Amino acid sequence: MEQRVSFITLAVRDLEATRRFYVGGLGWTPDVDVPGEVLMFRAGEHLVLSLWVESGFEAEVGPVRRGEGIVPVALAHNVASTDEVDAVLATARAAGAEVTGPQQRDWGGYTGYFADPDGFRWEVAFNPGPIGQVVLP
Amino acid sequence: MEQRVSFITLAVRDLEATRRFYVGGLGWTPDVDVPGEVLMFRAGEHLVLSLWVESGFEAEVGPVRRGEGIVPVALAHNVASTDEVDAVLATARAAGAEVTGPQQRDWGGYTGYFADPDGFRWEVAFNPGPIGQVVLP
Repeated sequence: MEQRVSFITLAVRDLEATRRFYVGGLGWTPDVDVPGEVLMFRAGEHLVLSLWVESGFEAEVGPVRRGEGIVPVALAHNVASTDEVDAVLATARAAGAEVTGPQQRDWGGYTGYFADPDGFRWEVAFNPGPIGQVVLP
Repeated sequence: MEQRVSFITLAVRDLEATRRFYVGGLGWTPDVDVPGEVLMFRAGEHLVLSLWVESGFEAEVGPVRRGEGIVPVALAHNVASTDEVDAVLATARAAGAEVTGPQQRDWGGYTGYFADPDGFRWEVAFNPGPIGQVVLP
């Protein structure tokens, strides 16, 4: 199996809240937009981020885990400087997201987190190491 | 905020089980390998899949949601034919994964799912539509 991720799908409870956040708040443009069903955003050269209504996800994949706590997944958006980390987190905060940090990390980076309307965590990161450089456009 | 995902991080309970599955079973090669802490795999031109021990994730991000059910996230690995879907699912099954499908979907594709050692769902998909074509290498 080749080392490739093609789609990241997040099951969301309220697609209109998701739309307001990603389109209105973050300024993203969907490639696929089916109201009440799914929003798909290009998120890399061969990568799509799909926000799928929970009922559709459950019908195809199975019942989702409910309850307190954070889903054990984070997406990261890496940028080239600490100033850009601050700026992206400010955009997320203005869009209504809860923001944690940013702060210096022991491994040499500078990162903070925001939560989307379903609580999915996004890390906004400046990573000066080799693995941080390969993810920059 | 640019439309980009740089890292996908999954919090895993047993990093050695994760290693056996992704490295031994699927045949992937990590770029970063810190035993007991993290495995990072290139998963696209500017994309990294990071498998991080749950204790590290919880210390930085917060307590994770526990209980029954599927984490409301799926990753997809898209291929160019139905035969390749079958082949990748056979690889995953041989690596010890539980497999569901594959089957024809109403939207025109042919997909099945496998679960990694933590139950994270991967869809293996042939998608003949436009959004399926852009994710192929």
